Amino acid sequence: MNEKDFSPYFFFERPIAFYESDAMGILHHSNYLRLFEEARLRWLRARGLEHEHYPKSELTLAVLETACRHLHPVHLGDDVKIYLAIRAQGLKIEFQYAIFTKRFEDPVALGTSLHVMLDKEFKVRRPPQAILQVLEKELWTETWR
Amino acid sequence: MNEKDFSPYFFFERPIAFYESDAMGILHHSNYLRLFEEARLRWLRARGLEHEHYPKSELTLAVLETACRHLHPVHLGDDVKIYLAIRAQGLKIEFQYAIFTKRFEDPVALGTSLHVMLDKEFKVRRPPQAILQVLEKELWTETWR
Amino acid sequence: MNEKDFSPYFFFERPIAFYESDAMGILHHSNYLRLFEEARLRWLRARGLEHEHYPKSELTLAVLETACRHLHPVHLGDDVKIYLAIRAQGLKIEFQYAIFTKRFEDPVALGTSLHVMLDKEFKVRRPPQAILQVLEKELWTETWR
Amino acid sequence: MNEKDFSPYFFFERPIAFYESDAMGILHHSNYLRLFEEARLRWLRARGLEHEHYPKSELTLAVLETACRHLHPVHLGDDVKIYLAIRAQGLKIEFQYAIFTKRFEDPVALGTSLHVMLDKEFKVRRPPQAILQVLEKELWTETWR
Repeated sequence: MNEKDFSPYFFFERPIAFYESDAMGILHHSNYLRLFEEARLRWLRARGLEHEHYPKSELTLAVLETACRHLHPVHLGDDVKIYLAIRAQGLKIEFQYAIFTKRFEDPVALGTSLHVMLDKEFKVRRPPQAILQVLEKELWTETWR
Repeated sequence: MNEKDFSPYFFFERPIAFYESDAMGILHHSNYLRLFEEARLRWLRARGLEHEHYPKSELTLAVLETACRHLHPVHLGDDVKIYLAIRAQGLKIEFQYAIFTKRFEDPVALGTSLHVMLDKEFKVRRPPQAILQVLEKELWTETWR
Repeated sequence: MNEKDFSPYFFFERPIAFYESDAMGILHHSNYLRLFEEARLRWLRARGLEHEHYPKSELTLAVLETACRHLHPVHLGDDVKIYLAIRAQGLKIEFQYAIFTKRFEDPVALGTSLHVMLDKEFKVRRPPQAILQVLEKELWTETWR
Repeated sequence: MNEKDFSPYFFFERPIAFYESDAMGILHHSNYLRLFEEARLRWLRARGLEHEHYPKSELTLAVLETACRHLHPVHLGDDVKIYLAIRAQGLKIEFQYAIFTKRFEDPVALGTSLHVMLDKEFKVRRPPQAILQVLEKELWTETWR
Protein backbone atom coordinates (compact mmCIF):
# COMPACT_ATOMS: atom_id res chain seq x y z
CA MET A 1 0.00 0.00 0.00
CA ASN A 2 1.48 3.32 -0.97
CA GLU A 3 0.36 6.90 -0.63
CA LYS A 4 -1.65 6.99 -3.88
CA ASP A 5 -4.13 4.50 -2.40
CA PHE A 6 -4.98 7.06 0.25
CA SER A 7 -5.77 9.93 -2.11
CA PRO A 8 -9.57 9.71 -1.61
CA TYR A 9 -9.19 10.27 2.14
CA PHE A 10 -8.93 13.38 4.29
CA PHE A 11 -5.40 14.34 5.31
CA PHE A 12 -3.46 17.17 6.85
CA GLU A 13 0.24 17.87 6.71
CA ARG A 14 2.66 19.64 8.99
CA PRO A 15 6.35 19.79 9.94
CA ILE A 16 7.61 17.90 12.98
CA ALA A 17 8.54 20.26 15.79
CA PHE A 18 11.93 20.01 17.44
CA TYR A 19 10.25 19.53 20.85
CA GLU A 20 8.45 16.46 19.46
CA SER A 21 11.74 14.66 18.86
CA ASP A 22 13.48 12.45 21.40
CA ALA A 23 17.08 11.54 22.11
CA MET A 24 17.11 9.23 19.06
CA GLY A 25 16.49 12.26 16.83
CA ILE A 26 13.07 10.95 15.83
CA LEU A 27 9.43 11.75 16.56
CA HIS A 28 8.67 10.31 19.99
CA HIS A 29 6.12 7.49 19.74
CA SER A 30 3.64 9.14 22.16
CA ASN A 31 3.32 12.05 19.74
CA TYR A 32 1.69 9.84 17.11
CA LEU A 33 -1.45 9.80 19.26
CA ARG A 34 -1.24 13.59 19.28
CA LEU A 35 -0.99 13.68 15.49
CA PHE A 36 -4.05 11.42 15.33
CA GLU A 37 -5.94 13.82 17.59
CA GLU A 38 -4.91 16.81 15.51
CA ALA A 39 -6.12 14.96 12.42
CA ARG A 40 -9.51 14.30 14.04
CA LEU A 41 -10.02 17.93 14.95
CA ARG A 42 -8.84 19.13 11.53
CA TRP A 43 -11.29 16.71 9.98
CA LEU A 44 -14.13 18.06 12.17
CA ARG A 45 -13.19 21.58 11.09
CA ALA A 46 -12.94 20.61 7.41
CA ARG A 47 -16.38 19.00 7.55
CA GLY A 48 -17.96 22.02 9.25
CA LEU A 49 -18.50 20.02 12.46
CA GLU A 50 -16.44 22.18 14.79
CA HIS A 51 -19.61 23.37 16.54
CA GLU A 52 -20.49 19.80 17.51
CA HIS A 53 -17.39 19.35 19.65
CA TYR A 54 -15.82 20.92 22.71
CA PRO A 55 -15.23 23.83 23.27
CA LYS A 56 -18.06 24.98 20.95
CA SER A 57 -20.31 22.16 22.23
CA GLU A 58 -20.20 20.28 25.52
CA LEU A 59 -19.42 17.00 23.77
CA THR A 60 -16.02 15.47 23.21
CA LEU A 61 -14.79 12.50 21.24
CA ALA A 62 -13.54 10.65 24.31
CA VAL A 63 -10.91 7.99 23.66
CA LEU A 64 -11.77 4.37 24.46
CA GLU A 65 -8.90 2.67 22.63
CA THR A 66 -5.82 3.57 20.65
CA ALA A 67 -3.32 1.49 18.74
CA CYS A 68 -0.34 2.35 16.60
CA ARG A 69 2.12 0.33 14.53
CA HIS A 70 5.47 1.89 13.63
CA LEU A 71 6.96 0.83 10.31
CA HIS A 72 9.65 3.50 9.93
CA PRO A 73 11.02 6.31 12.08
CA VAL A 74 10.06 9.94 11.43
CA HIS A 75 13.17 12.09 11.52
CA LEU A 76 13.40 15.74 12.44
CA GLY A 77 13.07 17.79 9.30
CA ASP A 78 10.46 15.39 7.88
CA ASP A 79 6.98 16.68 7.22
CA VAL A 80 4.19 14.26 8.10
CA LYS A 81 0.98 13.71 6.19
CA ILE A 82 -1.77 12.09 8.27
CA TYR A 83 -4.62 10.41 6.37
CA LEU A 84 -7.73 9.31 8.19
CA ALA A 85 -10.88 7.28 7.64
CA ILE A 86 -13.86 7.31 9.96
CA ARG A 87 -17.02 5.29 10.52
CA ALA A 88 -19.83 4.94 13.04
CA GLN A 89 -20.07 1.69 15.02
CA GLY A 90 -23.33 1.96 16.95
CA LEU A 91 -22.71 4.61 19.58
CA LYS A 92 -18.99 4.38 18.92
CA ILE A 93 -16.94 6.16 16.29
CA GLU A 94 -13.87 4.52 14.83
CA PHE A 95 -10.94 6.20 13.13
CA GLN A 96 -8.00 4.75 11.30
CA TYR A 97 -4.85 6.64 10.35
CA ALA A 98 -1.92 6.29 7.99
CA ILE A 99 1.10 8.56 8.27
CA PHE A 100 3.47 9.25 5.38
CA THR A 101 6.74 11.13 5.03
CA LYS A 102 8.71 11.75 1.82
CA ARG A 103 11.45 9.42 3.03
CA PHE A 104 9.48 6.17 2.53
CA GLU A 105 6.94 4.96 -0.02
CA ASP A 106 4.89 2.95 2.43
CA PRO A 107 3.35 4.41 5.59
CA VAL A 108 5.66 5.18 8.49
CA ALA A 109 2.83 4.36 10.89
CA LEU A 110 -0.70 2.98 10.94
CA GLY A 111 -3.11 3.55 13.76
CA THR A 112 -6.65 3.24 15.00
CA SER A 113 -8.74 4.86 17.69
CA LEU A 114 -12.17 4.13 19.10
CA HIS A 115 -14.35 6.82 20.66
CA VAL A 116 -17.65 7.62 22.27
CA MET A 117 -19.08 11.06 22.67
CA LEU A 118 -19.16 12.16 26.30
CA ASP A 119 -20.61 15.25 27.95
CA LYS A 120 -18.87 17.19 30.72
CA GLU A 121 -20.10 14.72 33.35
CA PHE A 122 -18.47 11.87 31.39
CA LYS A 123 -21.87 10.44 30.38
CA VAL A 124 -22.11 8.69 27.04
CA ARG A 125 -24.15 10.64 24.51
CA ARG A 126 -25.41 9.77 21.06
CA PRO A 127 -23.33 11.54 18.37
CA PRO A 128 -25.19 14.63 17.12
CA GLN A 129 -27.22 14.26 13.94
CA ALA A 130 -24.85 16.58 12.07
CA ILE A 131 -21.95 14.22 12.72
CA LEU A 132 -23.95 11.09 11.86
CA GLN A 133 -25.03 12.61 8.54
CA VAL A 134 -21.44 13.36 7.62
CA LEU A 135 -20.35 9.88 8.69
CA GLU A 136 -22.77 8.29 6.23
CA LYS A 137 -20.88 9.89 3.37
CA GLU A 138 -17.39 9.09 4.62
CA LEU A 139 -15.30 6.51 2.84
CA TRP A 140 -14.21 3.36 4.71
CA THR A 141 -13.00 0.35 2.85
CA GLU A 142 -11.13 -2.11 4.97
CA THR A 143 -8.59 -1.92 7.73
CA TRP A 144 -5.37 -0.30 6.55
CA ARG A 145 -2.39 -2.64 6.88
CA MET B 1 -9.53 -8.44 37.83
CA ASN B 2 -8.61 -6.11 40.67
CA GLU B 3 -5.36 -4.72 41.98
CA LYS B 4 -4.55 -7.68 44.27
CA ASP B 5 -4.09 -9.92 41.23
CA PHE B 6 -1.21 -7.71 40.14
CA SER B 7 0.73 -7.86 43.41
CA PRO B 8 3.44 -10.23 42.07
CA TYR B 9 4.33 -7.75 39.30
CA PHE B 10 6.65 -4.78 39.17
CA PHE B 11 4.99 -1.38 39.56
CA PHE B 12 5.79 2.23 40.16
CA GLU B 13 3.57 4.99 41.44
CA ARG B 14 3.47 8.73 40.98
CA PRO B 15 1.13 11.74 41.07
CA ILE B 16 -0.37 13.09 37.86
CA ALA B 17 1.13 16.44 36.93
CA PHE B 18 -1.11 19.39 36.16
CA TYR B 19 0.52 19.74 32.72
CA GLU B 20 -0.51 16.16 31.91
CA SER B 21 -4.20 17.04 32.20
CA ASP B 22 -6.36 18.26 29.35
CA ALA B 23 -9.41 20.51 29.08
CA MET B 24 -11.61 17.67 30.44
CA GLY B 25 -9.63 17.81 33.69
CA ILE B 26 -8.26 14.31 33.12
CA LEU B 27 -4.97 12.73 32.13
CA HIS B 28 -4.63 13.18 28.37
CA HIS B 29 -4.69 9.82 26.57
CA SER B 30 -1.30 10.34 24.88
CA ASN B 31 0.33 10.49 28.32
CA TYR B 32 -0.53 6.85 29.01
CA LEU B 33 2.18 5.86 26.52
CA ARG B 34 4.53 8.10 28.49
CA LEU B 35 3.58 6.36 31.74
CA PHE B 36 4.25 3.03 30.05
CA GLU B 37 7.70 4.25 28.99
CA GLU B 38 8.47 5.52 32.47
CA ALA B 39 7.45 2.11 33.83
CA ARG B 40 9.81 0.34 31.39
CA LEU B 41 12.76 2.49 32.40
CA ARG B 42 11.96 2.16 36.12
CA TRP B 43 11.80 -1.58 35.62
CA LEU B 44 15.22 -1.59 33.88
CA ARG B 45 16.63 0.42 36.79
CA ALA B 46 14.99 -1.84 39.40
CA ARG B 47 16.46 -4.94 37.70
CA GLY B 48 19.96 -3.46 37.49
CA LEU B 49 19.72 -3.24 33.69
CA GLU B 50 20.16 0.50 33.32
CA HIS B 51 23.61 -0.04 31.78
CA GLU B 52 22.10 -2.09 28.93
CA HIS B 53 20.02 0.81 27.60
CA TYR B 54 20.60 4.27 26.22
CA PRO B 55 22.22 6.55 27.38
CA LYS B 56 24.51 4.12 29.27
CA SER B 57 24.54 1.76 26.27
CA GLU B 58 23.95 2.47 22.60
CA LEU B 59 20.86 0.28 22.54
CA THR B 60 17.25 1.39 22.96
CA LEU B 61 13.99 -0.45 23.34
CA ALA B 62 12.53 0.93 20.12
CA VAL B 63 8.76 0.88 19.87
CA LEU B 64 7.15 -1.27 17.18
CA GLU B 65 3.58 -1.25 18.44
CA THR B 66 1.53 0.26 21.22
CA ALA B 67 -2.07 -0.21 22.28
CA CYS B 68 -4.12 1.13 25.15
CA ARG B 69 -7.68 0.58 26.37
CA HIS B 70 -9.25 3.18 28.64
CA LEU B 71 -11.75 1.89 31.19
CA HIS B 72 -12.00 4.94 33.46
CA PRO B 73 -10.67 8.48 33.41
CA VAL B 74 -7.72 9.51 35.61
CA HIS B 75 -8.53 12.80 37.30
CA LEU B 76 -6.09 15.44 38.45
CA GLY B 77 -5.17 14.74 42.05
CA ASP B 78 -5.19 10.97 41.43
CA ASP B 79 -1.98 9.05 41.89
CA VAL B 80 -1.37 6.32 39.31
CA LYS B 81 0.16 2.92 39.91
CA ILE B 82 1.52 1.27 36.75
CA TYR B 83 2.06 -2.50 36.85
CA LEU B 84 3.97 -4.24 34.10
CA ALA B 85 4.77 -7.71 32.83
CA ILE B 86 7.45 -8.46 30.25
CA ARG B 87 8.51 -11.36 28.06
CA ALA B 88 10.84 -12.13 25.17
CA GLN B 89 9.29 -13.04 21.81
CA GLY B 90 12.25 -14.07 19.64
CA LEU B 91 14.12 -10.85 18.94
CA LYS B 92 11.17 -8.87 20.18
CA ILE B 93 10.28 -7.88 23.73
CA GLU B 94 6.68 -7.51 24.78
CA PHE B 95 5.30 -5.51 27.70
CA GLN B 96 1.83 -5.31 29.12
CA TYR B 97 0.60 -2.69 31.57
CA ALA B 98 -2.26 -2.16 33.99
CA ILE B 99 -2.87 1.23 35.57
CA PHE B 100 -4.76 1.69 38.84
CA THR B 101 -5.95 4.69 40.82
CA LYS B 102 -7.64 4.71 44.21
CA ARG B 103 -10.91 5.85 42.62
CA PHE B 104 -11.73 2.50 40.94
CA GLU B 105 -11.25 -1.15 41.89
CA ASP B 106 -10.58 -2.35 38.39
CA PRO B 107 -7.81 -0.96 36.18
CA VAL B 108 -8.33 2.49 34.66
CA ALA B 109 -6.31 1.40 31.62
CA LEU B 110 -4.68 -1.66 30.11
CA GLY B 111 -1.94 -1.49 27.53
CA THR B 112 0.68 -3.36 25.56
CA SER B 113 3.83 -2.47 23.70
CA LEU B 114 6.12 -4.41 21.41
CA HIS B 115 9.80 -3.56 21.02
CA VAL B 116 13.06 -4.48 19.37
CA MET B 117 16.43 -3.32 20.48
CA LEU B 118 18.02 -0.92 18.02
CA ASP B 119 21.44 0.68 17.91
CA LYS B 120 22.07 4.31 16.99
CA GLU B 121 21.93 3.49 13.29
CA PHE B 122 18.44 2.00 13.78
CA LYS B 123 19.74 -1.55 13.15
CA VAL B 124 18.03 -4.40 14.98
CA ARG B 125 20.22 -5.96 17.64
CA ARG B 126 19.79 -9.04 19.77
CA PRO B 127 18.89 -8.06 23.37
CA PRO B 128 21.99 -8.23 25.60
CA GLN B 129 22.50 -11.40 27.62
CA ALA B 130 21.93 -9.52 30.88
CA ILE B 131 18.43 -8.58 29.74
CA LEU B 132 17.62 -12.05 28.42
CA GLN B 133 18.67 -13.63 31.70
CA VAL B 134 16.38 -11.34 33.66
CA LEU B 135 13.53 -11.98 31.22
CA GLU B 136 13.69 -15.72 31.90
CA LYS B 137 12.77 -15.04 35.51
CA GLU B 138 9.98 -12.55 34.85
CA LEU B 139 6.39 -13.50 35.46
CA TRP B 140 3.94 -13.57 32.53
CA THR B 141 0.67 -15.37 32.83
CA GLU B 142 -1.80 -14.39 30.18
CA THR B 143 -2.95 -11.21 28.56
CA TRP B 144 -4.45 -8.80 31.06
CA ARG B 145 -8.08 -7.96 30.33
CA MET C 1 26.47 29.11 44.83
CA ASN C 2 26.42 25.36 45.24
CA GLU C 3 23.84 22.87 46.38
CA LYS C 4 24.65 23.15 50.11
CA ASP C 5 23.38 26.73 50.13
CA PHE C 6 19.94 25.41 49.19
CA SER C 7 19.63 22.87 51.98
CA PRO C 8 17.11 24.94 54.01
CA TYR C 9 14.67 25.01 51.07
CA PHE C 10 12.00 22.60 49.90
CA PHE C 11 13.02 20.32 47.06
CA PHE C 12 11.87 17.27 45.20
CA GLU C 13 13.86 14.87 43.07
CA ARG C 14 13.04 12.62 40.14
CA PRO C 15 14.59 10.94 37.11
CA ILE C 16 14.30 12.54 33.68
CA ALA C 17 11.95 10.59 31.43
CA PHE C 18 13.05 9.52 27.98
CA TYR C 19 10.09 11.37 26.44
CA GLU C 20 11.33 14.60 28.04
CA SER C 21 14.56 14.49 26.04
CA ASP C 22 15.03 16.05 22.62
CA ALA C 23 17.19 15.26 19.61
CA MET C 24 20.25 16.68 21.44
CA GLY C 25 19.86 13.93 24.07
CA ILE C 26 19.06 16.48 26.74
CA LEU C 27 16.00 17.65 28.68
CA HIS C 28 14.02 19.92 26.35
CA HIS C 29 13.96 23.49 27.64
CA SER C 30 10.14 23.68 27.74
CA ASN C 31 10.13 20.87 30.29
CA TYR C 32 11.87 23.05 32.89
CA LEU C 33 8.60 24.97 33.28
CA ARG C 34 6.94 21.61 33.85
CA LEU C 35 9.47 20.70 36.53
CA PHE C 36 8.79 24.06 38.18
CA GLU C 37 5.06 23.32 38.17
CA GLU C 38 5.61 19.86 39.62
CA ALA C 39 7.74 21.44 42.36
CA ARG C 40 4.96 23.95 43.18
CA LEU C 41 2.35 21.19 43.51
CA ARG C 42 4.70 18.96 45.54
CA TRP C 43 5.34 21.93 47.81
CA LEU C 44 1.58 22.50 48.26
CA ARG C 45 1.19 18.82 49.14
CA ALA C 46 4.16 18.86 51.52
CA ARG C 47 2.74 21.91 53.33
CA GLY C 48 -0.74 20.35 53.65
CA LEU C 49 -2.19 22.93 51.23
CA GLU C 50 -3.44 20.53 48.57
CA HIS C 51 -7.05 21.33 49.53
CA GLU C 52 -6.52 25.01 48.68
CA HIS C 53 -5.80 24.33 45.01
CA TYR C 54 -7.55 22.83 42.03
CA PRO C 55 -8.94 20.13 41.79
CA LYS C 56 -9.69 20.05 45.55
CA SER C 57 -10.54 23.76 45.50
CA GLU C 58 -11.72 25.97 42.63
CA LEU C 59 -8.57 28.09 42.82
CA THR C 60 -5.42 27.71 40.75
CA LEU C 61 -2.01 29.32 40.87
CA ALA C 62 -2.35 30.90 37.43
CA VAL C 63 0.90 31.81 35.72
CA LEU C 64 1.58 35.49 34.98
CA GLU C 65 5.29 35.25 34.19
CA THR C 66 7.99 32.66 33.87
CA ALA C 67 11.71 32.91 33.29
CA CYS C 68 14.50 30.36 33.13
CA ARG C 69 18.27 30.57 32.71
CA HIS C 70 20.13 27.47 31.54
CA LEU C 71 23.67 27.06 32.84
CA HIS C 72 24.29 23.41 31.92
CA PRO C 73 22.40 20.75 29.98
CA VAL C 74 20.53 17.94 31.76
CA HIS C 75 21.35 14.65 30.11
CA LEU C 76 19.17 11.58 29.94
CA GLY C 77 20.03 9.37 32.88
CA ASP C 78 20.48 12.40 35.17
CA ASP C 79 18.19 12.81 38.14
CA VAL C 80 17.07 16.37 38.82
CA LYS C 81 16.61 18.00 42.20
CA ILE C 82 14.39 21.09 42.11
CA TYR C 83 14.66 23.52 45.04
CA LEU C 84 12.14 26.28 45.47
CA ALA C 85 11.54 29.42 47.51
CA ILE C 86 8.22 31.23 47.67
CA ARG C 87 6.91 34.57 48.91
CA ALA C 88 3.74 36.68 48.77
CA GLN C 89 3.88 39.96 46.82
CA GLY C 90 0.54 41.64 47.55
CA LEU C 91 -2.03 39.55 45.68
CA LYS C 92 0.75 37.86 43.75
CA ILE C 93 2.84 34.86 44.71
CA GLU C 94 6.41 34.56 43.53
CA PHE C 95 8.49 31.40 43.24
CA GLN C 96 12.13 30.92 42.45
CA TYR C 97 13.75 27.63 41.51
CA ALA C 98 17.21 26.11 41.32
CA ILE C 99 17.79 22.77 39.59
CA PHE C 100 20.75 20.52 40.34
CA THR C 101 22.08 17.29 38.88
CA LYS C 102 25.02 15.23 40.12
CA ARG C 103 27.02 16.18 37.02
CA PHE C 104 27.67 19.81 38.06
CA GLU C 105 28.33 21.56 41.36
CA ASP C 106 26.48 24.73 40.45
CA PRO C 107 22.82 24.79 39.39
CA VAL C 108 22.00 23.58 35.88
CA ALA C 109 19.12 26.07 35.74
CA LEU C 110 17.61 28.93 37.72
CA GLY C 111 14.06 30.11 37.26
CA THR C 112 11.27 32.27 38.54
CA SER C 113 7.52 32.35 38.18
CA LEU C 114 4.88 34.88 39.20
CA HIS C 115 1.29 33.89 39.94
CA VAL C 116 -2.11 35.06 41.02
CA MET C 117 -4.85 32.84 42.28
CA LEU C 118 -7.74 32.60 39.85
CA ASP C 119 -11.13 30.96 40.13
CA LYS C 120 -12.78 28.97 37.34
CA GLU C 121 -14.06 32.18 35.71
CA PHE C 122 -10.47 33.49 35.56
CA LYS C 123 -11.22 36.13 38.22
CA VAL C 124 -8.38 37.14 40.54
CA ARG C 125 -8.91 35.94 44.10
CA ARG C 126 -7.04 36.64 47.31
CA PRO C 127 -4.91 33.62 48.30
CA PRO C 128 -6.68 31.61 51.02
CA GLN C 129 -5.68 32.29 54.62
CA ALA C 130 -4.16 28.81 54.94
CA ILE C 131 -1.70 29.61 52.13
CA LEU C 132 -0.88 33.09 53.46
CA GLN C 133 -0.13 31.68 56.90
CA VAL C 134 2.30 29.15 55.45
CA LEU C 135 3.91 31.84 53.27
CA GLU C 136 4.77 33.91 56.36
CA LYS C 137 6.98 31.10 57.58
CA GLU C 138 8.69 30.35 54.27
CA LEU C 139 12.32 31.26 53.76
CA TRP C 140 13.25 33.82 51.09
CA THR C 141 16.63 35.47 51.11
CA GLU C 142 17.51 37.12 47.86
CA THR C 143 17.25 36.27 44.23
CA TRP C 144 19.17 33.13 43.35
CA ARG C 145 21.92 33.74 40.79
CA MET D 1 0.43 47.94 21.23
CA ASN D 2 -1.94 46.07 18.96
CA GLU D 3 -1.48 43.58 16.17
CA LYS D 4 -1.07 46.17 13.38
CA ASP D 5 2.21 47.32 14.93
CA PHE D 6 3.60 43.86 14.29
CA SER D 7 2.75 43.68 10.61
CA PRO D 8 6.37 44.19 9.42
CA TYR D 9 7.52 41.11 11.37
CA PHE D 10 7.61 37.43 10.53
CA PHE D 11 4.74 35.40 11.94
CA PHE D 12 3.15 32.01 11.68
CA GLU D 13 -0.32 30.92 12.66
CA ARG D 14 -1.85 27.65 13.77
CA PRO D 15 -4.74 26.18 15.78
CA ILE D 16 -4.22 25.13 19.37
CA ALA D 17 -4.29 21.35 19.74
CA PHE D 18 -6.55 19.72 22.29
CA TYR D 19 -3.53 18.00 23.87
CA GLU D 20 -1.95 21.42 24.47
CA SER D 21 -4.79 22.46 26.78
CA ASP D 22 -4.83 21.89 30.52
CA ALA D 23 -7.56 21.35 33.10
CA MET D 24 -8.42 25.07 32.97
CA GLY D 25 -9.38 24.64 29.30
CA ILE D 26 -6.54 26.89 28.18
CA LEU D 27 -3.17 26.51 26.51
CA HIS D 28 -0.76 25.26 29.17
CA HIS D 29 1.93 27.85 29.91
CA SER D 30 4.82 25.49 29.11
CA ASN D 31 3.54 25.23 25.54
CA TYR D 32 4.30 28.90 24.87
CA LEU D 33 7.99 28.01 24.81
CA ARG D 34 7.10 25.34 22.27
CA LEU D 35 5.26 27.89 20.13
CA PHE D 36 8.32 30.14 20.32
CA GLU D 37 10.51 27.26 19.14
CA GLU D 38 8.15 26.46 16.29
CA ALA D 39 8.26 30.13 15.29
CA ARG D 40 12.08 30.09 15.26
CA LEU D 41 12.22 27.03 13.03
CA ARG D 42 9.50 28.38 10.72
CA TRP D 43 11.49 31.59 10.48
CA LEU D 44 14.67 29.65 9.58
CA ARG D 45 12.71 27.80 6.90
CA ALA D 46 11.11 31.02 5.57
CA ARG D 47 14.55 32.67 5.32
CA GLY D 48 16.09 29.69 3.51
CA LEU D 49 18.31 28.93 6.52
CA GLU D 50 17.05 25.43 7.23
CA HIS D 51 20.37 23.97 6.06
CA GLU D 52 22.25 25.92 8.75
CA HIS D 53 20.48 24.15 11.60
CA TYR D 54 20.10 20.63 12.93
CA PRO D 55 19.28 18.12 11.47
CA LYS D 56 20.57 19.49 8.13
CA SER D 57 23.62 20.95 9.88
CA GLU D 58 25.29 19.92 13.14
CA LEU D 59 24.47 23.26 14.75
CA THR D 60 21.50 24.07 16.95
CA LEU D 61 20.14 27.28 18.41
CA ALA D 62 20.69 26.17 22.01
CA VAL D 63 18.57 27.94 24.60
CA LEU D 64 20.36 30.05 27.24
CA GLU D 65 17.37 31.95 28.57
CA THR D 66 13.63 32.15 28.12
CA ALA D 67 11.00 34.45 29.54
CA CYS D 68 7.28 34.80 28.97
CA ARG D 69 4.63 37.18 30.25
CA HIS D 70 0.98 36.11 30.04
CA LEU D 71 -1.56 38.87 29.52
CA HIS D 72 -4.61 36.80 28.56
CA PRO D 73 -5.43 33.10 28.41
CA VAL D 74 -5.55 31.23 25.09
CA HIS D 75 -8.67 29.12 24.97
CA LEU D 76 -9.16 25.90 23.06
CA GLY D 77 -10.60 26.74 19.67
CA ASP D 78 -8.44 29.89 19.41
CA ASP D 79 -5.86 30.12 16.65
CA VAL D 80 -2.57 31.69 17.67
CA LYS D 81 -0.42 34.01 15.58
CA ILE D 82 3.20 34.20 16.75
CA TYR D 83 5.24 37.20 15.63
CA LEU D 84 8.97 37.26 16.12
CA ALA D 85 11.92 39.65 15.90
CA ILE D 86 15.53 38.54 15.96
CA ARG D 87 18.96 40.15 16.34
CA ALA D 88 22.59 39.15 16.85
CA GLN D 89 24.23 40.06 20.17
CA GLY D 90 27.89 39.15 19.70
CA LEU D 91 27.95 35.35 19.63
CA LYS D 92 24.42 35.27 20.98
CA ILE D 93 21.15 35.48 19.11
CA GLU D 94 18.13 37.08 20.71
CA PHE D 95 14.49 36.55 19.79
CA GLN D 96 11.39 38.29 21.00
CA TYR D 97 7.83 37.06 20.45
CA ALA D 98 4.31 38.41 20.59
CA ILE D 99 1.32 36.07 20.44
CA PHE D 100 -2.13 37.18 19.31
CA THR D 101 -5.55 35.53 19.17
CA LYS D 102 -8.75 36.96 17.74
CA ARG D 103 -10.24 37.21 21.23
CA PHE D 104 -8.08 40.18 22.36
CA GLU D 105 -6.68 43.28 20.66
CA ASP D 106 -3.45 43.33 22.62
CA PRO D 107 -1.02 40.40 22.75
CA VAL D 108 -1.99 37.40 24.86
CA ALA D 109 1.69 36.81 25.62
CA LEU D 110 5.09 38.40 25.11
CA GLY D 111 8.32 36.47 25.32
CA THR D 112 12.04 36.48 24.75
CA SER D 113 14.72 33.87 24.27
CA LEU D 114 18.49 34.04 24.14
CA HIS D 115 20.57 31.50 22.24
CA VAL D 116 24.04 30.44 21.20
CA MET D 117 24.81 28.06 18.43
CA LEU D 118 26.21 24.77 19.69
CA ASP D 119 27.62 21.78 17.90
CA LYS D 120 26.89 18.16 18.85
CA GLU D 121 29.56 18.26 21.58
CA PHE D 122 27.81 21.28 23.14
CA LYS D 123 30.68 23.59 22.11
CA VAL D 124 29.81 27.21 21.31
CA ARG D 125 30.18 28.02 17.62
CA ARG D 126 29.99 31.28 15.72
CA PRO D 127 26.68 31.53 13.82
CA PRO D 128 27.22 30.62 10.14
CA GLN D 129 27.73 33.50 7.72
CA ALA D 130 24.40 32.76 6.02
CA ILE D 131 22.55 33.38 9.28
CA LEU D 132 24.56 36.52 10.13
CA GLN D 133 23.83 37.99 6.70
CA VAL D 134 20.12 37.46 7.15
CA LEU D 135 20.25 38.88 10.67
CA GLU D 136 21.66 42.17 9.35
CA LYS D 137 18.49 42.71 7.38
CA GLU D 138 16.05 41.73 10.12
CA LEU D 139 13.93 44.36 11.80
CA TRP D 140 14.36 45.02 15.54
CA THR D 141 13.06 48.15 17.09
CA GLU D 142 12.81 48.02 20.83
CA THR D 143 11.65 45.50 23.35
CA TRP D 144 7.98 44.61 22.90
CA ARG D 145 5.90 45.47 25.97
